[in-house]
Amino acid sequence: MSIQTVAKQFVEMCNQGKNFDVMRTMYHPDIVSVEGDGTETAGQTPVIQKSERWAAVNTIHGEKVLGPYFNGPNQFAVHFAFDVTPKATGKRITLEEVGVYTVKDDRITREQFFYDGER
Amino acid sequence: MSIQTVAKQFVEMCNQGKNFDVMRTMYHPDIVSVEGDGTETAGQTPVIQKSERWAAVNTIHGEKVLGPYFNGPNQFAVHFAFDVTPKATGKRITLEEVGVYTVKDDRITREQFFYDGER
Repeated sequence: MSIQTVAKQFVEMCNQGKNFDVMRTMYHPDIVSVEGDGTETAGQTPVIQKSERWAAVNTIHGEKVLGPYFNGPNQFAVHFAFDVTPKATGKRITLEEVGVYTVKDDRITREQFFYDGER
Repeated sequence: MSIQTVAKQFVEMCNQGKNFDVMRTMYHPDIVSVEGDGTETAGQTPVIQKSERWAAVNTIHGEKVLGPYFNGPNQFAVHFAFDVTPKATGKRITLEEVGVYTVKDDRITREQFFYDGER
């Protein structure tokens, strides 16, 4: 599969709200996830659990993904806009972020999130 | 200056179309610029000349920059949408891309561009 095929499948599934299917089927067992503060989480299961913790404290109304955009043979980026209500505040907001993904052998081996200044 | 200050100034100036002022005042003399195909250009003057060559073959009607978004202590990302007419085609298009920037001592030392599949 080309990186274009992998990245387009990623965007299509995310735009359908299937983020957890992406993580289960497209993430490498040894993926490293880098949060906005630089914290790294290693391993597919811990990375999925991290997202489960986020999903548990937010009501997710939808998301819109722009991209994919490509650099070199094995990296792509997307722009996310999540429409969410954090349960802690009850206030509906749009969370924008950029994700940079590294692909090897058709699996995502690294993700790096860039967040806006309010997080 | 914090990276937040640097990045917000970057976005503000780009949204005013002052991209060359950004390159002249915010880029490190030894900046490395990584194009979508992975090609690297080193040095502030060669990087500016690369942009001058791009600007010479496109009529730029405007640009809109989303962000900045942050990862770790020294990186930020933005989403660009350029409203341009390539002189070669005369057909007005929107070029979307993601830029990832590394900052050291208040200067941008590295930029990495992610392009959509059509370039």
